[in-house]
Parts: sequence; structure tokens; C-alpha cells
Amino acid sequence: MRIVQKFGGTSVANVERIQAVALRVKGEVDEGHQVVVAVSAMAGVTNQLIEYCSAVSPLHDAREHDVVVSTGEQITSGLLAMALQGLGIQARSWQGWQLPIRTDGVHGKARIRDIDTQELEKRLESGEVAVIPGFQGLGDDNRITTLGRGGTDTTAVALAAALHADRCDIYTDVEGVYTTDPRIVPSARKLDKITYEEMLEMASLGARVLQTRSVELAMNHRVPLQVLSSFSNASGTLVCDEDEIVEKEIVSGIAYSMDEAKVTLVKVEDRPGIAASIFGPLADANINVDMIVQNVSEDGSTDVTFTVGRVDVGRAKEAVQNDDSISFESVITDDAVVKVSVIGVGMRSHVGVAKTMFEALAEKGINIQVISTSEIKVSVLISEEYTELALRSLHTAFDLDGE
Amino acid sequence: MRIVQKFGGTSVANVERIQAVALRVKGEVDEGHQVVVAVSAMAGVTNQLIEYCSAVSPLHDAREHDVVVSTGEQITSGLLAMALQGLGIQARSWQGWQLPIRTDGVHGKARIRDIDTQELEKRLESGEVAVIPGFQGLGDDNRITTLGRGGTDTTAVALAAALHADRCDIYTDVEGVYTTDPRIVPSARKLDKITYEEMLEMASLGARVLQTRSVELAMNHRVPLQVLSSFSNASGTLVCDEDEIVEKEIVSGIAYSMDEAKVTLVKVEDRPGIAASIFGPLADANINVDMIVQNVSEDGSTDVTFTVGRVDVGRAKEAVQNDDSISFESVITDDAVVKVSVIGVGMRSHVGVAKTMFEALAEKGINIQVISTSEIKVSVLISEEYTELALRSLHTAFDLDGE
Repeated sequence: MRIVQKFGGTSVANVERIQAVALRVKGEVDEGHQVVVAVSAMAGVTNQLIEYCSAVSPLHDAREHDVVVSTGEQITSGLLAMALQGLGIQARSWQGWQLPIRTDGVHGKARIRDIDTQELEKRLESGEVAVIPGFQGLGDDNRITTLGRGGTDTTAVALAAALHADRCDIYTDVEGVYTTDPRIVPSARKLDKITYEEMLEMASLGARVLQTRSVELAMNHRVPLQVLSSFSNASGTLVCDEDEIVEKEIVSGIAYSMDEAKVTLVKVEDRPGIAASIFGPLADANINVDMIVQNVSEDGSTDVTFTVGRVDVGRAKEAVQNDDSISFESVITDDAVVKVSVIGVGMRSHVGVAKTMFEALAEKGINIQVISTSEIKVSVLISEEYTELALRSLHTAFDLDGE
Repeated sequence: MRIVQKFGGTSVANVERIQAVALRVKGEVDEGHQVVVAVSAMAGVTNQLIEYCSAVSPLHDAREHDVVVSTGEQITSGLLAMALQGLGIQARSWQGWQLPIRTDGVHGKARIRDIDTQELEKRLESGEVAVIPGFQGLGDDNRITTLGRGGTDTTAVALAAALHADRCDIYTDVEGVYTTDPRIVPSARKLDKITYEEMLEMASLGARVLQTRSVELAMNHRVPLQVLSSFSNASGTLVCDEDEIVEKEIVSGIAYSMDEAKVTLVKVEDRPGIAASIFGPLADANINVDMIVQNVSEDGSTDVTFTVGRVDVGRAKEAVQNDDSISFESVITDDAVVKVSVIGVGMRSHVGVAKTMFEALAEKGINIQVISTSEIKVSVLISEEYTELALRSLHTAFDLDGE
């Protein structure tokens, strides 16, 4: 088998943990597998480097930022290669520019374009372990690019795809993907399997186990992904194709996101094209709008409510206020909100999920502010103070509680 | 003018100092000069990285060691480029592999072979400042190499040579090159000028201002070197050709080195070829022998004394003991010794320096154990406890004391 393993920052936080990781890699090598390892920076290192950059110049050149922050993963890659050699395993590190891992030129959040695997394939065949710093690549300007936070997940999956790996194991500090956040709902269960589509919703909705982009990539290339803990030997969660899951649950999990803020335009003039005139300026300002609801028109005017990322709320308000083509009475923003989502591919063939969700929330007196749905999820925006209550009620309502 | 500036670890120890360095670079840019900057790792960073390597595996792969330790300079290069941009100066960092700075493949102590300056020249002409991490290059295995301790001096001088720079300014934490160590002899004077040859002796004999190899390189390429402090605006010391110094002193400085150890072979059988049979095994063991003295033969046997680096003394003893071709009664080692050297190009045309030196030492009752001389220096090995006394006496004897 050919396996790509990814170890996050807490898994390589210090020299002892790097040595523990080396032992885990050795385990796979001893089984006769070909192994590629993608590593993050030692926990805390990237933040320190980002702090240096901000201290030197608040508005710094993203290309130089990438030069600085990519060093964290470079350090880990060299140390892990040494640790493996210390266990008698052939190993070497490959920096992003050495393979190379080619990316576009968007410094700070580059996307991987392709990976030259020719030399790597040869080395793997000969039994050598490749240790690859995550999060970094080479832009077409021949400079170091970084992939953005959580980028090592993406590096690992991209490597697995390019090398046609049989498995991509994402080692982290939790034991897998849970039905919901176990810190809030103690009865949350670890899922044995979850589909790519569900994982994508879980990831982007705030269950921060895997970087969204890495799940997309895994789905597109059908890379079997496994999420598991580097601190235990428990089996993890397999992220896979729908047809590999025999008994599909209607609802697989409940996710939540605190990153949302609500913006309401009061008494907007109600005429054709009004949506375009509101959301055009937001798109121009590069602000992502998530949920949208428009009230029934009364006296030729209506209220329009939408959600944006919490960090964007100030800019969103400014964008609509500064645009002369929109006429409204006032704008109200609220960031004490949470988006709670019920997710499951079973919904496609099963009606009544929304009804069960709304009833469960109504029973607890939780007011739903905005609703949005997709084929495999129902999301509601509610007041932040109800987060825990809503998660627990929904977890029970959908029969997700473990023993 | 085209100037290469080098800033050492204490000069870039934190964000504030990096910003101070940026201001210094700006000063040269504002004068209309083309500027290339070579930087070291922030003070303490390289040691931390070396510690990680040793902790992971005491006998580690030098290639992976280079991957890890080269990150220190990479960080500084990105931060300084940002700081310069923050002052409105066009600047970018160039990693060793980007230029590239080609070295041989000796990881951990590589030598620079050549530097591709084509792109750099173009950028300099356009007014862009190049920030280059010192100490690193690209081996012919396409992997990162490092140049060994103090390697940033060498990077700076190599860049100055390749770019035909008008000046190479080495910024450090002292104000220049002194007649002797001012911590020991308070009346030591800063030299305005010193020849390459003298500086080479000063550097290798323990006046740790410049890396020896960088001085050799500067001498071979006739790069005018200036040593000055990044913490003051005082003029420094110019290291230059002999013919640029009008009034040559007979003696320019007194250097000392604590890195020596003395090895004496007692009652060595005295026959032709004995020297070869002693020093052959030492050369085979890659041990550098510095001073050698052989006593007058008595009854067909003699004592042979030589000095080696203190770190090598154990291995040296072993090498001679394990070699059957040498017969001697016993071997005595002593590392409580110091080598004191009087240096000056003026000696070439002026006799009596050795005599003055020996008399000054004799007057203080200091016993000379070994003597060695070259065209421009006289070195003696004495007991370590006389270090300060010897330096002060010689400094006065050669009229070097300032006010």
C-alpha cells in the first residue's frame, strides 16, 4: 500500500512528539507500506512567525510573509527526517520548491496546481520515506507560496491524489469526526464513516477537523481520507464515497459556526433588481454572503436580512451604505448569532428533517431568525446564547446520542 | 556606488533592531547607492535550531541539519525586506536556492562556488535592494547547504566579489578591529586600517571579528572590507591592500587563542622519517597540527611537542598511541596553554620583533614553551595563566597603547 500521513502542529509540538511520530511512521514502513509524510509547524511556531511579520510592518508584502512563515514546516520536515533516520529508516525531506509543489501565485492563500512526483515515485519504490513540509509550494514567480491556515491538510491530500495513494491519514488531536462538538454535547459519538459531501459541510460549518479545501480535493480525486488521533491507537473516521457506506444515517451530524454576523436592511424600496443592487456592491468588496432572507413586501418596501463573516461585518455595512443605488431606511447588524446546521446525505431520500429540526427548536423556545437549505443540510441562524441548548436538543431529536 | 552590507545576529536580534537596520540601509539608498544586504539569523535562533537537531538525533544527517538551521537566516531576510518596504524602499529577499548561490556538496561547511548575479544586477540597477540570507547556498545535489559558523561574513564577501561591489561593510557589535582584545587591555586602540594578511592572522588567531574564510575571499578578490558597529556611527576599520596603507606600523596587533592544546611525545626514537610517522596518522585522522618543536637528540631519542585544537586533543593522543610505527616512552597533554601572536606586515622589512617580544615576556618571568614564526607574525605558546600579563606587556612593548 501507498500511504500519505499528515501530522498537525500539536502532533509535532516538541522533539519528543516528533520522535513519537517517527515511531508511528515506522509502524507503516514495517508493514511494507510506502509512506509519504506531510508535517505542520511545531505548535506555536507559525503564530510566533506571524507576530514577527505584523510587528515589522502591519501591511506587509505577502511574498515576504510566505518566506518567513514557511520556515516553521521546513524545520519540522528536517527534524522528522532525522528522527526517522535515527530509527534506521531511509528518509529525506523535500521542500516545496524542491519537488516542486507548483501553486498559483496568490501568496498567503495559494492553490496547488500540480506536484512533480517522478523522483518521489522512484524513491518510494526504493523504500525511502518522503517527509514534506505542508502549507508551502512554489509560485510561478519562483518564490515560496503558502496555502493559508490548515494548508498542511491540503498538501497531504494533494500528495495522495498525485501519487495515487491508497489512503491519506490525517493525524490530529481528536479521535475523528464526531456527530457534534463533544465539548458541548458529551453524548456526541465518533462517526466510523462520513461522506465527502457531509464532511465538506461539517468542515465549512465550523467542525474544524479538516480544512475545507482538502476535503474538496479529496472528493474530486476520490482520495480515501481517514481522520485519527496521533495520541491514541483508536480507529478514526473514514471520509469516503457515499456508496461505501452501507447503512446511511438520515442525519450524520450537527455543526455550528460562530463566525457569522447578521445584517438587516430596514425598509428597502421593493422593486425588481433590488437584490442585484444590494449584493453587487458586496461582491465587489469581496465579501462572501451566506444566508439571505427577504420579507414579504408591505407598502412597496421590504426588509432584507443576510449573513456575512463576522470579520466582514463592518466592511459590509459600509459597502451598502456607500452605494447610492440602494435606498433603505436603516441598517442593523448583529453578531451575537450562531448558525446551526443539520447535515446528512440521507436527507436526499428522506423528508421531514426540516420539520423535526424546527419542532425541536420550537419546543425549547428558540427563535429561528434565518433559514437556508441545501440538498444535504438545513441551517438556521439563532441567537448565540442558545448554542448549547440547540445542539443538545437537535442531537437528541435526531437520535444521535451515544450511550 | 555598489555596497554590500552584512548584519550579524546581535544586529538583527529582534524586530526593533531589524527596523534599525532597515534605517541604516535606507541611509545608503538615499545617498544613491545600490545596496545588497546579507543577514544572519536573529541572535539565539541558530543555537535553538541546532539544539533541536541534537535532541532529535545526536548523529544526524548533515543535509537535514542544513534544512533546519538555514531557516534562521530565511526568517530574517523576509522580515528585513518587509521592514525596508515599510520605509518605502523597493526590496526583496532572495534565498540561497533562488539566486542561486552555488556551493560544493559539503553539508554543514560548504564552500561557495559561484553566484548567479544576472537577475540581481538588473534589480540593483532599477534601485531594488536585495536582502540575502547569509550562511546558506545550494549544493549540487539541489539541496540546501550551510557554510558553517560565521558563514554570513563569507556570503557577504562572496556577493561583493561577484557583484564587483565598491565596498563590503560588515556590521557587528564591536566598533572595528583593535590592536588587541580591549576587554583584557583597556588601552587597546581601534585600527583605522589593516591589511588582509594581518586580518587573516588576527581572525584565525582568535580575534573573532570576521570569519577567516571571508577574509581569504576578500583578499583573493581584493574586496575592500569595512568592519563597523551597527550600534554606533563611529567609523570602523578598513581591511585593505598593503599599498593602501601609507604609514605601516611594524606591529599592528597582538592576538591570542585559547583553542590550543599541547601534546608532548617523550623519548621518541630519533631516526630519519620520525616526523612523517608521527604526523601522518594525525593527518589521516583529520587533525590539524599547528606549532611543532623537536628537542635536540640525546642518546638516540628526543622529545617532540606539537599543538592541536583543544577539541582534538583526545583524538590526537589516541592516533599516536594506536600507531605501531611510532615508538616513544609516554605522551603528555596540556590544554592550559594559550598562543599569543604579534602580527604586522612591517616585520617583513624590520628585524628585531621576535627579540623585543621574547625580552618583554622574559622580563615578566613568562616561560615560552613553543615558538613559531611566519613572514608577518611571531607566535609563542605560554601557560594560560599568563594571558593577560603577556598581552599587556606586549601591547606596551610594541608601542600600541592609546591614551
